[in-house]
Amino acid sequence: MADFFELLSKRRSVRDYENRAVSLDLVEEIIRDSCFAPSSGDGQPWRFIVVNNKEWIKKLSDESKRNILSFIETNPEAPLKKYESVLRDKDFNVFYNAPCLVFIGGCKDIRSLHVDCALAASYFMFSAAARGLGTCWVGLGTSIQDPKVREQVGMPKDYRIVAPIVVGYPKNIPGRPDNREAKILKVVS
Amino acid sequence: MADFFELLSKRRSVRDYENRAVSLDLVEEIIRDSCFAPSSGDGQPWRFIVVNNKEWIKKLSDESKRNILSFIETNPEAPLKKYESVLRDKDFNVFYNAPCLVFIGGCKDIRSLHVDCALAASYFMFSAAARGLGTCWVGLGTSIQDPKVREQVGMPKDYRIVAPIVVGYPKNIPGRPDNREAKILKVVS
Repeated sequence: MADFFELLSKRRSVRDYENRAVSLDLVEEIIRDSCFAPSSGDGQPWRFIVVNNKEWIKKLSDESKRNILSFIETNPEAPLKKYESVLRDKDFNVFYNAPCLVFIGGCKDIRSLHVDCALAASYFMFSAAARGLGTCWVGLGTSIQDPKVREQVGMPKDYRIVAPIVVGYPKNIPGRPDNREAKILKVVS
Repeated sequence: MADFFELLSKRRSVRDYENRAVSLDLVEEIIRDSCFAPSSGDGQPWRFIVVNNKEWIKKLSDESKRNILSFIETNPEAPLKKYESVLRDKDFNVFYNAPCLVFIGGCKDIRSLHVDCALAASYFMFSAAARGLGTCWVGLGTSIQDPKVREQVGMPKDYRIVAPIVVGYPKNIPGRPDNREAKILKVVS
């Protein structure tokens, strides 16, 4: 039993994980739960890739860091610039040394791909939290470009990563956020 | 108490509503819940507009239909073409005659606006379901272009609608979906 209203404020982005593997069965259950998300025209365009191997996750982190740093070099005005020093730190793993990483994405030609995959990602993160796991959507983890690496992890040529989500047993879960304010522009009644 | 795993499969898109108003207090609670969603860099770019007036909702439906039909005329190959006949039906309300409509959107210049607002929308739809309400993300409801109408409902010039969500007491809730399949492209372990 997992009370939704408890999950609502207690589900937080987790960036600190125990050194403990997550079983593939459990990840598959969470993926099945994610597929209950609504999608535009019930298109269900989400496709999942599971990486539960720390060496591979490190390799994907390095690939992502390399691509973002190269992007920053040619676009020094980009907001990503603020991450430059941390990305240059060889020991920094964009996936927070989590034991498992799941990509949610799909065919880049689908117009609603981003919102559909974000809805599935939300279901994924709730389901994981309800099962005692932590997750974090890692924005810095989308830059997987090397064709060989992409092929090795099973990404079709037209695959766009929307949500790279790390999964693991939390060592520390941040407290309930206190900076939430409902910004309602207008009530038309 | 609302069990998350029950909500997960029972929360469905509702298109058939009782003729019963939803209190503004309740809608505001749901909006507050939605703001617990994670967002890129904790930017929380979501801005909400609540329309709980059926005449206004009808006006917004007409405005959306007009704009989509005009788009179809100049883009006859667009996928939206399949909605042409229903959009030409004067009695068809894209918002399903629901008593309440909430727009989730924000400044169009924010790169992560679509995924951030989709995450908030997912929280919104879960919270509403946990409170006994039905919702539906109405893709056909995003074409609000008339500057006067936009101003009247409180949309800033740079406001982009991501998720128009109708809210109400369900008359009929569809059953558990039976067309869900977890599409896992690869497990790298």
